[in-house]
Amino acid sequence: MSLVVVGSVAFDTIETPHGRAEEELGGSAVHFALAASLLNKVRLAGHIGRDATAAHLAPLRRPNIDLRGLTVKEGKTFRWSGRYAHDMNQRETISVELNVFGQYPPELLPEYADSDFVFLANGAPAHQMMVIDQCKAPQFVVLDTMDHWIISNRPELDKLFRRVDAVVVNDSEARLLTGEEHIRAAQKVLEMGPKYVIVKHGAHGALMVSGREVFVIPAFPTTRVKDPTGAGDSFAGGVMGHLSRVGKVTPQEMRLAMAYGTIIASFNVEEFGVRRVASLTLEEVEARMLEFRRVLKF
Amino acid sequence: MSLVVVGSVAFDTIETPHGRAEEELGGSAVHFALAASLLNKVRLAGHIGRDATAAHLAPLRRPNIDLRGLTVKEGKTFRWSGRYAHDMNQRETISVELNVFGQYPPELLPEYADSDFVFLANGAPAHQMMVIDQCKAPQFVVLDTMDHWIISNRPELDKLFRRVDAVVVNDSEARLLTGEEHIRAAQKVLEMGPKYVIVKHGAHGALMVSGREVFVIPAFPTTRVKDPTGAGDSFAGGVMGHLSRVGKVTPQEMRLAMAYGTIIASFNVEEFGVRRVASLTLEEVEARMLEFRRVLKF
Repeated sequence: MSLVVVGSVAFDTIETPHGRAEEELGGSAVHFALAASLLNKVRLAGHIGRDATAAHLAPLRRPNIDLRGLTVKEGKTFRWSGRYAHDMNQRETISVELNVFGQYPPELLPEYADSDFVFLANGAPAHQMMVIDQCKAPQFVVLDTMDHWIISNRPELDKLFRRVDAVVVNDSEARLLTGEEHIRAAQKVLEMGPKYVIVKHGAHGALMVSGREVFVIPAFPTTRVKDPTGAGDSFAGGVMGHLSRVGKVTPQEMRLAMAYGTIIASFNVEEFGVRRVASLTLEEVEARMLEFRRVLKF
Repeated sequence: MSLVVVGSVAFDTIETPHGRAEEELGGSAVHFALAASLLNKVRLAGHIGRDATAAHLAPLRRPNIDLRGLTVKEGKTFRWSGRYAHDMNQRETISVELNVFGQYPPELLPEYADSDFVFLANGAPAHQMMVIDQCKAPQFVVLDTMDHWIISNRPELDKLFRRVDAVVVNDSEARLLTGEEHIRAAQKVLEMGPKYVIVKHGAHGALMVSGREVFVIPAFPTTRVKDPTGAGDSFAGGVMGHLSRVGKVTPQEMRLAMAYGTIIASFNVEEFGVRRVASLTLEEVEARMLEFRRVLKF
């Protein structure tokens, strides 16, 4: 079934203990699309500025990525700059220039409006709602958000929660939303509307709750973490890539989807920006999936 | 094979968001022994003061626990008092009175000296070394420690690391020991001597590294966390209970052992002190193990 992601396309400047990368292609829609494209076709909707060159966008030119929804707007491309502390679990945002991402609401091409699986990457809740309104008959809509919107746009977010099928948050966002931790937090988010809630634990994997169903999955243990930027969006891309490929959402498929998300995210962090996932193959993903099953066996 | 634990017996005063318990039976050797006793016989070596009554010790009177090594010393029993913050991942020690635990070095009864599996619960490295010296021909010695000893007794600890088969630490101890995180930290600890290193991630499970072998296991997802005190020792008790029961240590048995440790620790946190594990049955453990396998399946 068809899959669309609506989110940011960015140029990131990233500092980690392993080095520094400047004006690196990034953004939620980019990390998501590259991950999802390993498993299914994916439509990308996002804005870039006049400063984006063909060379910048080269990593996105993959057979499974539909770039018709990548629109050039007057202005500059979204820029984010951040730094990771030694343990890479804490990141500090140095600067954010929303540019065209903030200036223009998202647009869904008429050719994208029939998408079955929809991923609303992190962005203004009002913009996310506009995307839902443009979808004709979505089968499964997944929402990502962040602390900023939880704090300052809660009423809009609450409305959104009642219109989406799943929500993906990290531990601190889950705590901010519910005042609870871990599985209790996920259960409380479920009460806000979505059928599935995924809570990401950063380097410690993720948790999924749906009704009475609970699934936990650790992260793939890798020693080669160079840059965690985009790990959450790669994870979501793997999840949605799998679900849209099999064309149905059941707790069992959601589990396997999260395993794909975990594996692809583990590659994402091995190089700066999208460098690793842009050259990743499905064979590498499947090989690591087998290794992961060995690592988890008892 | 025979199993012995040498460590503290304490009266804990614990405050969590779920309530408060005073002069609750606790201590590393107690939590360990109760957990291990579900799977095998276990010998307990530790000191109590003249203030310890039969009623205090009643939870330890189980067929599988050998209490001959519980010796009464002049003085008061070890007391610890602490408070957990809302998320229960952070705890604050309010007071520590080492009492007999600090005043007397550990003693291994002659009847315990032939123990095959030895758990050196957290304590002064010099005391832990004295225990090793008293063991005749131990098959598998596991060491626990804490930040205090890593900071102030590093040379003794380094010597110990070369004499034990396995080390159990948590994330912050692993970081303190190696300056590294997660799997890299575990690999660095391996270089210090032990054949197996287990890194506990608190509410996020644990990691084991041995040679090129890597195993990760999440925590059992429970919504009923009332008191995390003793979770690490219950975990270790489950691990050593299983290993000593099967009488051999292989990576495969270590994995299953860690699953037992995970399950028993998940019960331990459901009530204050040892209340839950003291009434736990092997049937309950096995039932939750099956549930855990379902939770992890993808």
